[in-house]
Amino acid sequence: MPGFRYAGVHCGVKAQRGELDLALIESEVPATAAAVFTRSTVVGAPVEWSRQCAKAGKARAIVANSGCSNVAMGARGRRDAEAMAAATAKTLGCKAKEVFVASTGVIGEPLPMAKIRAGIRSASQGLDSGGLRDAGEAIRTTDTFAKLASERAIVGRKNVRIAGIAKGSGMIEPDMATMLSFLVTDVAATPTYLRGALKRVADQTFNRVTVDGEGSTSDSVILLANGYAENAVLRTPKSPGAKRFEAALFDVAEELARMLARDGEGATKLVTIDVTGAANPAEAERAARRIANSMLVKTAIFGRDPNWGRILQTIGAGRIRLALPRVEVKLCGVPVFKGGASAGAAARKRAEKGLTQDEVEIAVHLGAGRSKARIWTCDLSYDYVRINAEYTT
Amino acid sequence: MPGFRYAGVHCGVKAQRGELDLALIESEVPATAAAVFTRSTVVGAPVEWSRQCAKAGKARAIVANSGCSNVAMGARGRRDAEAMAAATAKTLGCKAKEVFVASTGVIGEPLPMAKIRAGIRSASQGLDSGGLRDAGEAIRTTDTFAKLASERAIVGRKNVRIAGIAKGSGMIEPDMATMLSFLVTDVAATPTYLRGALKRVADQTFNRVTVDGEGSTSDSVILLANGYAENAVLRTPKSPGAKRFEAALFDVAEELARMLARDGEGATKLVTIDVTGAANPAEAERAARRIANSMLVKTAIFGRDPNWGRILQTIGAGRIRLALPRVEVKLCGVPVFKGGASAGAAARKRAEKGLTQDEVEIAVHLGAGRSKARIWTCDLSYDYVRINAEYTT
Repeated sequence: MPGFRYAGVHCGVKAQRGELDLALIESEVPATAAAVFTRSTVVGAPVEWSRQCAKAGKARAIVANSGCSNVAMGARGRRDAEAMAAATAKTLGCKAKEVFVASTGVIGEPLPMAKIRAGIRSASQGLDSGGLRDAGEAIRTTDTFAKLASERAIVGRKNVRIAGIAKGSGMIEPDMATMLSFLVTDVAATPTYLRGALKRVADQTFNRVTVDGEGSTSDSVILLANGYAENAVLRTPKSPGAKRFEAALFDVAEELARMLARDGEGATKLVTIDVTGAANPAEAERAARRIANSMLVKTAIFGRDPNWGRILQTIGAGRIRLALPRVEVKLCGVPVFKGGASAGAAARKRAEKGLTQDEVEIAVHLGAGRSKARIWTCDLSYDYVRINAEYTT
Repeated sequence: MPGFRYAGVHCGVKAQRGELDLALIESEVPATAAAVFTRSTVVGAPVEWSRQCAKAGKARAIVANSGCSNVAMGARGRRDAEAMAAATAKTLGCKAKEVFVASTGVIGEPLPMAKIRAGIRSASQGLDSGGLRDAGEAIRTTDTFAKLASERAIVGRKNVRIAGIAKGSGMIEPDMATMLSFLVTDVAATPTYLRGALKRVADQTFNRVTVDGEGSTSDSVILLANGYAENAVLRTPKSPGAKRFEAALFDVAEELARMLARDGEGATKLVTIDVTGAANPAEAERAARRIANSMLVKTAIFGRDPNWGRILQTIGAGRIRLALPRVEVKLCGVPVFKGGASAGAAARKRAEKGLTQDEVEIAVHLGAGRSKARIWTCDLSYDYVRINAEYTT
């Protein structure tokens, strides 16, 4: 898309030769910027720095490294995050404050700043309009594939483009799988509008993914908009074309979010959980999250066991209101529990067959009201234990 | 202990020949009774029945089966739970309302009532003052060993005895590991006093165990007191000897609770988590539970990785208040994080050595206040996944 360039390089934060570990995204003009961050009480220095950039609402670049998260490093961590921004600003000819910073990887280790500085120089020399995939590669940690998505929308008769990369998984693990997503668009929009749109979209996409119920110290979603589409500036959700822009932004974010769930550590299946009939929206979301984070449900899905008992049990344990005689549990479209009782052996057989697929749906109607919620997650396999027990920080 | 008899028999709820699956505990006189149950919104028919017994405050027996939980079976489930009590009452010559009922095992299958009835007859014929271990065996499901504990206390110059059995793990899984504990004592006490004492003790013992953060549909702790110790009846926590009785009851419950955690599904280690310096008791407990239920912390313990980053991260993700420069994380007595930074490689080495032991301590000081909490849990191993993914309901 015109006006944006990207690079991903190897600078040596990760030991393995040739493994990309530093990403740079550059806007040739100051772009309108919006971002959402982790709400953890323990946050990394890069998040503290980038929160200031988001407040300013204008940015020229995003610099990110994988392999080291720069978390829990005190004053040194803050200096290093600022130095990453300053080094990037110097090569691009802008102010440090116009550079978002993100780091992901081990907690409690210092950033190797000489390598990072060399990496920033090399990345700035390699910036290219076709470099988004390299940038996506460079922010990977335990991700098994780079995650890219793009979309178009007509906004006030102008063609608007949105593209993005992501890594990790929504609410996830601290060492190596912080959720990061960087989005770029050529839409023209005010910072206020962009902030609202990003928050609404992130709440329904990135914030609906859970791999293991954990929020990271460094989760960041950053959106840069350079205005090159020359549409009439989007100022509010009611501006002409704003709905279509937000829908396209939602599509990109949803696609990336689903990739995060699918690529959860050790995952063999993408699991979509839909809760309906809840007493209120908060209970709907809580029920969906409990199912998604239940180790028992996740291991059952891994084992292809249509175990509605575990689903009901985790909802009950969360003291979520339901009317058992009206409750229905569907697995891959097959009702396995309804009218207060098991749907029988034939239904179980059909559900077992459904559970052999790579994408699995769990739909639960609580019979207690009209609220609903959707969450994406993955199953829990031996490989999750292997990755997290045998990986040494 | 005088006045109590016990039996454990095989009646065929469990397929394997000779595997004990029905337990009976009998008091020769009506005993004062107290109980605490799951707070789930999905509860088994046996819990509904036993709640009525607990309200009455007097009971002659506890009958329990493993292999089938009698949960989510509607009207049939209620009839079957009542029929278990009635059959037991008939053989013992008491009222059905004086018989507590508990069932643990698969959800959504009907109880094989002919087998259960035959088992009750056979158990009542085999009742013996030395049969507590058999009863403990008969309530096992995925437990790898039967759990028994006993204690004595001097209450108003009288020797008081307490004994108990338990199975499963505090907050646990729905199919095969409901937490059950049955306690007997010869203390003389009013139902009101006994209820209060049991609730206080259970809150600090059984309710402090978590294997996977799940509460069951059937968790039950039942205490019968026959008064044979002839102490002056305990009426309030201030009655002479009440403190000593409660301390002994606590010891029995704590010992059983620790056994539950140690025997968590797939567990290789018993993990004790102590959080201090929290802003208030609720945050202390929440922090301890988050650490205990964190899949990342549990896999790190399994992998003997002194990963303080994951501990801080899960506390932060729970938005629990802390003052990072005052935070201290100790693993097996070794400070691995203090003063806002890693304690270094030597400390890590010492902690790694500590993590090779069967019992592991995680102590976290939050630096935000004076409240504290303790939780027992276990690690997360390949075997947890195997048991829960490959076990077919």
